[in-house]
Amino acid sequence: MPTPRRAARSSGRALGAIGEFGLLARLLPILPTGGRGVLLGPGDDCAVVAPRGRALLVTIDALVEGVHFRRGWLSPAELGRKAFAVNASDLAAMGGAPRWGVVQIAAPPRLPAADVVAISRAIAAAARRAGASLVGGNLSRARELSVALALIGEAPPRPVTRAGARPGDALYVTGRIGDAALGVRLLRRGIRSGPAVSRFRAPTPRLAAGALLARRRLASAMIDVSDGLLQDLGHLCAASAVGARIELARVPCAPAVRRAGIDLALTGGEDYELLFAVPRRRETALARVASQFGCAVTRIGECTRGGGIRVVDERGREQSFAGGHDHFR
Amino acid sequence: MPTPRRAARSSGRALGAIGEFGLLARLLPILPTGGRGVLLGPGDDCAVVAPRGRALLVTIDALVEGVHFRRGWLSPAELGRKAFAVNASDLAAMGGAPRWGVVQIAAPPRLPAADVVAISRAIAAAARRAGASLVGGNLSRARELSVALALIGEAPPRPVTRAGARPGDALYVTGRIGDAALGVRLLRRGIRSGPAVSRFRAPTPRLAAGALLARRRLASAMIDVSDGLLQDLGHLCAASAVGARIELARVPCAPAVRRAGIDLALTGGEDYELLFAVPRRRETALARVASQFGCAVTRIGECTRGGGIRVVDERGREQSFAGGHDHFR
Repeated sequence: MPTPRRAARSSGRALGAIGEFGLLARLLPILPTGGRGVLLGPGDDCAVVAPRGRALLVTIDALVEGVHFRRGWLSPAELGRKAFAVNASDLAAMGGAPRWGVVQIAAPPRLPAADVVAISRAIAAAARRAGASLVGGNLSRARELSVALALIGEAPPRPVTRAGARPGDALYVTGRIGDAALGVRLLRRGIRSGPAVSRFRAPTPRLAAGALLARRRLASAMIDVSDGLLQDLGHLCAASAVGARIELARVPCAPAVRRAGIDLALTGGEDYELLFAVPRRRETALARVASQFGCAVTRIGECTRGGGIRVVDERGREQSFAGGHDHFR
Repeated sequence: MPTPRRAARSSGRALGAIGEFGLLARLLPILPTGGRGVLLGPGDDCAVVAPRGRALLVTIDALVEGVHFRRGWLSPAELGRKAFAVNASDLAAMGGAPRWGVVQIAAPPRLPAADVVAISRAIAAAARRAGASLVGGNLSRARELSVALALIGEAPPRPVTRAGARPGDALYVTGRIGDAALGVRLLRRGIRSGPAVSRFRAPTPRLAAGALLARRRLASAMIDVSDGLLQDLGHLCAASAVGARIELARVPCAPAVRRAGIDLALTGGEDYELLFAVPRRRETALARVASQFGCAVTRIGECTRGGGIRVVDERGREQSFAGGHDHFR
């Protein structure tokens, strides 16, 4: 591992100056070689891992400069941690536990080599904290910085999918919704600190909650809220062939989000909270284990027999919201 | 699956016009839902797969527009097939068999939606032909088109790494070297067909050869030739702590490559052939099974006790070559 002084001294050197293999020579020593079920870590054509016989979950996600973040919004370490978090959130949404990851980093040659080192080190550290290992990766040149991470996780005995919700099931979310979208709004205005900005920078994958919901068979359907609450609810409802009724006043939001506009919570995206359906007969059991989730759990509505998705205010009046994240629009 | 007429009609519509979810609605029906060991295919937060208890290989690689290809060099279907091939080649280099893949496609909104459909369909088809399944993916916007694929494969009982070659082991390569680099040179000159261009467009991962070399314990070390023969040989030698002596006249090249310059074969890259070391006592056994490789196998030199990598011509004179692919230089 380089000493802080060496790291500082090298921070100005661009990728184009030290080259791909100079960078690899710097990266490989700082990546862990071991870890649970890791037979061969980074540095060869492939990693070799030993599954324990359970089903595995597989997911891939990317953070792209100019799309998911602008230069200066995230430090390299924050970018690495967030890349891990958004992938781990997909595993959480099925009740899984992260085990092994491989990363593809594309970067312009002018980028400081130390940035790629910091990104990789942060992914590896975030993985380790979650009981997982970064076992390999690939580097390539590109016009813009991007980090694509593929994660393999251990599935619970019964993975929770988006399908499976029934009319009458209650709808819950973990944590708070809308902070990250408010954070993006503030960052665009040049405000670079505060709780909302922090939530954009450092989402928390709800791994403990997801695992408990799956293992205790509390959730009939689940999804992570990455593209906006209503849009992701739409995916859950479509997969489950149900409608939904959401009570606006129950959606858990920071006061700052309500002041800025409740649409941030409904259509904003990047929350990485879990949205899940719970059969009525399981709500008592949910209440008993929710204290182990490490976050709030809030009932925000229920699944209905068709009828699309309706959002109602405190007086029962239907409200309409447009939006949600679409990558190509 | 859309009829050819519908596909043609939609080919002009850009991603920005149909949107991410319009694209997903078009993609999901054409992706296979089943496959060996696939419990849940594309369309949820994660895929669910069932390993058979063997160790797994994991790798990730990317093809980036402007780096690995220029617009017009590869059709969308060729890009998809090649993305699968370059990843499968990493599995082949350890003796593995591809099983499950997840893809991250980043694309500019102006790209025709039909191109992303064609890329995805081609990856899925290439996977299926190799006994594997494309089980999931993610789409995001970007300034340039890129395809990052993570592949999980089944490991052989003893995966072959880059380490393990001993002084005196013979060095072999599969197939022919240098065609792809010649192909790139021709494409840069506007020549868009011919055998060398085809080899750039459609490399063949040497899965059968890699699997036999591992299972019959013929290779003491192995790597795939992606960054240039000498550079990849350098990685194998460094990992194995050996030197190497390569006989220039034995390097298997097309006559067109020799005419264009043998450096294409030594430093050109993108061959996706296998380079492997064979203990002397195993060379007879190698000769017996080589007919099952589906490609030529050529002895090009041997591992030495230190001394770096030396390339000698027919008269034993040492030749010097500089180069090999470096992403950031």
